[in-house]
Amino acid sequence: MSAPTLEDDAMTRFEVPEFEDLPEDLQARISQETEEAGFTPNVFSAFASKPSHFRAFFEYHDALVDDTALDREEVEMIVVAVSGRNHCYYCNVAHGALLRIYSGDPELADQLVANYRQADISEKRMAMLDVAVTLTEAPDEVTEAHLERLAGVGYSAEAMWDIAAVTAFFNLSNRMAMFADMRPNEEFQTMGR
Amino acid sequence: MSAPTLEDDAMTRFEVPEFEDLPEDLQARISQETEEAGFTPNVFSAFASKPSHFRAFFEYHDALVDDTALDREEVEMIVVAVSGRNHCYYCNVAHGALLRIYSGDPELADQLVANYRQADISEKRMAMLDVAVTLTEAPDEVTEAHLERLAGVGYSAEAMWDIAAVTAFFNLSNRMAMFADMRPNEEFQTMGR
Amino acid sequence: MSAPTLEDDAMTRFEVPEFEDLPEDLQARISQETEEAGFTPNVFSAFASKPSHFRAFFEYHDALVDDTALDREEVEMIVVAVSGRNHCYYCNVAHGALLRIYSGDPELADQLVANYRQADISEKRMAMLDVAVTLTEAPDEVTEAHLERLAGVGYSAEAMWDIAAVTAFFNLSNRMAMFADMRPNEEFQTMGR
Amino acid sequence: MSAPTLEDDAMTRFEVPEFEDLPEDLQARISQETEEAGFTPNVFSAFASKPSHFRAFFEYHDALVDDTALDREEVEMIVVAVSGRNHCYYCNVAHGALLRIYSGDPELADQLVANYRQADISEKRMAMLDVAVTLTEAPDEVTEAHLERLAGVGYSAEAMWDIAAVTAFFNLSNRMAMFADMRPNEEFQTMGR
Amino acid sequence: MSAPTLEDDAMTRFEVPEFEDLPEDLQARISQETEEAGFTPNVFSAFASKPSHFRAFFEYHDALVDDTALDREEVEMIVVAVSGRNHCYYCNVAHGALLRIYSGDPELADQLVANYRQADISEKRMAMLDVAVTLTEAPDEVTEAHLERLAGVGYSAEAMWDIAAVTAFFNLSNRMAMFADMRPNEEFQTMGR
Amino acid sequence: MSAPTLEDDAMTRFEVPEFEDLPEDLQARISQETEEAGFTPNVFSAFASKPSHFRAFFEYHDALVDDTALDREEVEMIVVAVSGRNHCYYCNVAHGALLRIYSGDPELADQLVANYRQADISEKRMAMLDVAVTLTEAPDEVTEAHLERLAGVGYSAEAMWDIAAVTAFFNLSNRMAMFADMRPNEEFQTMGR
Repeated sequence: MSAPTLEDDAMTRFEVPEFEDLPEDLQARISQETEEAGFTPNVFSAFASKPSHFRAFFEYHDALVDDTALDREEVEMIVVAVSGRNHCYYCNVAHGALLRIYSGDPELADQLVANYRQADISEKRMAMLDVAVTLTEAPDEVTEAHLERLAGVGYSAEAMWDIAAVTAFFNLSNRMAMFADMRPNEEFQTMGR
Repeated sequence: MSAPTLEDDAMTRFEVPEFEDLPEDLQARISQETEEAGFTPNVFSAFASKPSHFRAFFEYHDALVDDTALDREEVEMIVVAVSGRNHCYYCNVAHGALLRIYSGDPELADQLVANYRQADISEKRMAMLDVAVTLTEAPDEVTEAHLERLAGVGYSAEAMWDIAAVTAFFNLSNRMAMFADMRPNEEFQTMGR
Repeated sequence: MSAPTLEDDAMTRFEVPEFEDLPEDLQARISQETEEAGFTPNVFSAFASKPSHFRAFFEYHDALVDDTALDREEVEMIVVAVSGRNHCYYCNVAHGALLRIYSGDPELADQLVANYRQADISEKRMAMLDVAVTLTEAPDEVTEAHLERLAGVGYSAEAMWDIAAVTAFFNLSNRMAMFADMRPNEEFQTMGR
Repeated sequence: MSAPTLEDDAMTRFEVPEFEDLPEDLQARISQETEEAGFTPNVFSAFASKPSHFRAFFEYHDALVDDTALDREEVEMIVVAVSGRNHCYYCNVAHGALLRIYSGDPELADQLVANYRQADISEKRMAMLDVAVTLTEAPDEVTEAHLERLAGVGYSAEAMWDIAAVTAFFNLSNRMAMFADMRPNEEFQTMGR
Repeated sequence: MSAPTLEDDAMTRFEVPEFEDLPEDLQARISQETEEAGFTPNVFSAFASKPSHFRAFFEYHDALVDDTALDREEVEMIVVAVSGRNHCYYCNVAHGALLRIYSGDPELADQLVANYRQADISEKRMAMLDVAVTLTEAPDEVTEAHLERLAGVGYSAEAMWDIAAVTAFFNLSNRMAMFADMRPNEEFQTMGR
Repeated sequence: MSAPTLEDDAMTRFEVPEFEDLPEDLQARISQETEEAGFTPNVFSAFASKPSHFRAFFEYHDALVDDTALDREEVEMIVVAVSGRNHCYYCNVAHGALLRIYSGDPELADQLVANYRQADISEKRMAMLDVAVTLTEAPDEVTEAHLERLAGVGYSAEAMWDIAAVTAFFNLSNRMAMFADMRPNEEFQTMGR
């Protein structure tokens, strides 16, 4: 298999490096992602411009999806709802695609991008998204009552931590994508529709 | 030297683990921090409750202060200005202490917690904080013009990425600290005053 | 051809009438739309519940697209940018589809739903959207300077009126769709992708 | 009776046409309004600059006041409360006058312009205005609970639709008046005081 | 002349005292105001419930109108624009009346209550109100540039202080009137129209 | 004892007068404050530039702390919470020092500057601060329900008035300090830590 090519316009405000110039561990990770997805998602090409951040960013991301009391659909629901409120084009589209795949629902991502309050979801997950969006938009308004509500609908202490962690991480991720003007690969547009 | 003790009330909404129960790499990192600071900053005790997140969080943090085109005073200025806008008690106090130490200025942290626009800082750093605060409060309003302004006052492309990265990371960090209700160690209160 | 069937779940908060019970002029309009689109867009089914509003709503809509100094792509760009800011699920999806068709660009609608400031559009149309979004979010902040900016990039007086009119009408339309919880037909999801 | 004269300064940002140059149906409507009111309200003079919009605007308006489950005082209360929140000078003054007349209360309009929460109104109408103002300022926060509250104080399904429709229409109307800088006729100032 | 009577409903949330029970200096001040105005403005009746606050409040008020580099029309313009933004019913109506009298313009108050940006005023006074409203709504956004703008249109250092002082005082005054739910005397409604 | 010296940089945007040039009553008050505090708090030096405002400002302040149903710790808690939300550097630091002294708690001021909702305070005082912050940020949202909540936790009618009065006065005070760019004396930084 030939080496992946990083798209020049993965982001518009910083230079995207050449694959060949990357440290070996980044090459390995990008090759694996490219093989699995069939293309190199632009967030890898963009973060590759600063390898120490690439490593930390994806280690954090991996922990959020691998070591979690949430199911993957819940993780992606939080990501899309948070990204919608933060107005992040890259994350709306890329994680919208992931959400369509993990949920098997072609409409849920567009609902969450627009307005999670009108999404067709359970009361439990509505509570989860209410907390995620409050923590996004007004973190100083989160009080004990929010944790009690999550407990009340059945989330464990670890699940609550994970809801906060996914929310917090995509508040980081949205800001990096928006600052660098990362652009979603066109492959994401039709995945899972 | 005896093993560090993690403060029970490092955070009020999740249980703080016992030092002895932690994986070896977390014990090593916490021991080192404790030796250097003379106490165990509560953020270590809090994140220790989820080791995979502990590792990713501090790897990211280390990259931000070790592999950067900014000087350490600039990093801490961003942290305190962002935490002030997000209303994060833990970060205001803990990073306020660090900023007093790195800047040698006992008043700068209180200025940035209150209102960075009235701080006694250079025009260059005012531009840096304007961008950091906009990226915090209204990331969708960041445009090419913000990057041009940073370039105009002398920041390199890498420094711009780093300004965004510190800002983005503390938008994560503030939210974790606020959700878990982390409490700053009392030692921070008087450091550098 | 058989009579159109109005989807029961065109909106969730009010009852959708039977096609057969509608006044003749509504039946005629709905039949024509259904023939052209291949399905009955749910906004017709929803407004049919109050015929006097149906008539006025679509007369206004028709004037906006038929008697205008803007081209149709511009009209739909305003609609999607405004609906994105107002968080309207129905309009994001239905007019996102129309925008993909009129612009021939499969990505523009997702850009405008997320953040018009990062869309790949001309300076002229960025000025148009800046004014449309300001008039949406803070109408009291619109001043003479906004009209001068539109004139400066080449919009005629009539075009300015039309920019305001499309913006104003979709501030009506978004609110009706959100209040009634109108749901986009699934056909819109893939149109033009 | 002589033909009405349209005030040149009915709006400051677009040209007001001559009465004689208007299509016959607009002349007829304006003549009738002028006869009833004793003067030509400036909103007619302003919309006359685009006849297709004039027709749709007033058809919608007429439907809202003629085919409604609300009484006229309720309609004007919504208009004034919404216009107050949107900061619309024309609508505050013109519909403030109408509200004084329909309610027989010289103070209610000034209360609603300032702060509907301190108005001397029934609990039922306070619920109506709470929903109208939420739908104006944060349409994405309207949920099923708002409709249940309206039902709880006695509004029928049709009345709820009408509350939303009046609110939505004046979100259109306010924006047109503010964009064109429409000016209320001085006759409105003292009507009903 | 008989003693003034304080209206029982000068405010709805605290008890209004009897004139006869007031300290002599309050009786004297209220008698004088009543003689001059022909009625007792309710703000006097309301503040009379706490004499120490009555004295300080009116001493401050008197300094603002007696010892000032602004003319009285400018003072009342600031008051009405600030009260409009803060949504204060009492101040809109009572100071709206004063502004009509001091300016000789029956429309200016309603313009400022609605939207000072569309008022018919000089560029100099528009600068004054821009600063007053920014200091009201986002005091942390006031910078040196605002003072330079005021100097540029001709305000002296003392006039700038006075602009800030009137703005600041009515941010106090609005909050007391709104908290106590003070009600404007009906005499204010028609004064100066 | 020698005469106090007013710090030249008590504020940066207006000139600070010479002590010798002040009216006798201002000299007396400043001398007394200086003797008690061991230094001249800069707010006295700043307000001395306009004696009529100096007198009214401190008369109001004195009434708030001398003639009150609140204890002094409550007064300073409101001041710091309000100043924190308004982003006032001078008041955060100066009244933070007073709060440390009156409460005997070295951490409470930093908690209130950051986020009163995470402060270690009784439910009664949390209710007090909820009302004070709502009255600061959204005075139009204060309703009868807020006063009932205060009554429910044990505040008398006079105490409620006083909570509103302290809040309102520091909405004045914050704006004057921020407009003039008053700077806290360095002595405040370490008081009570």
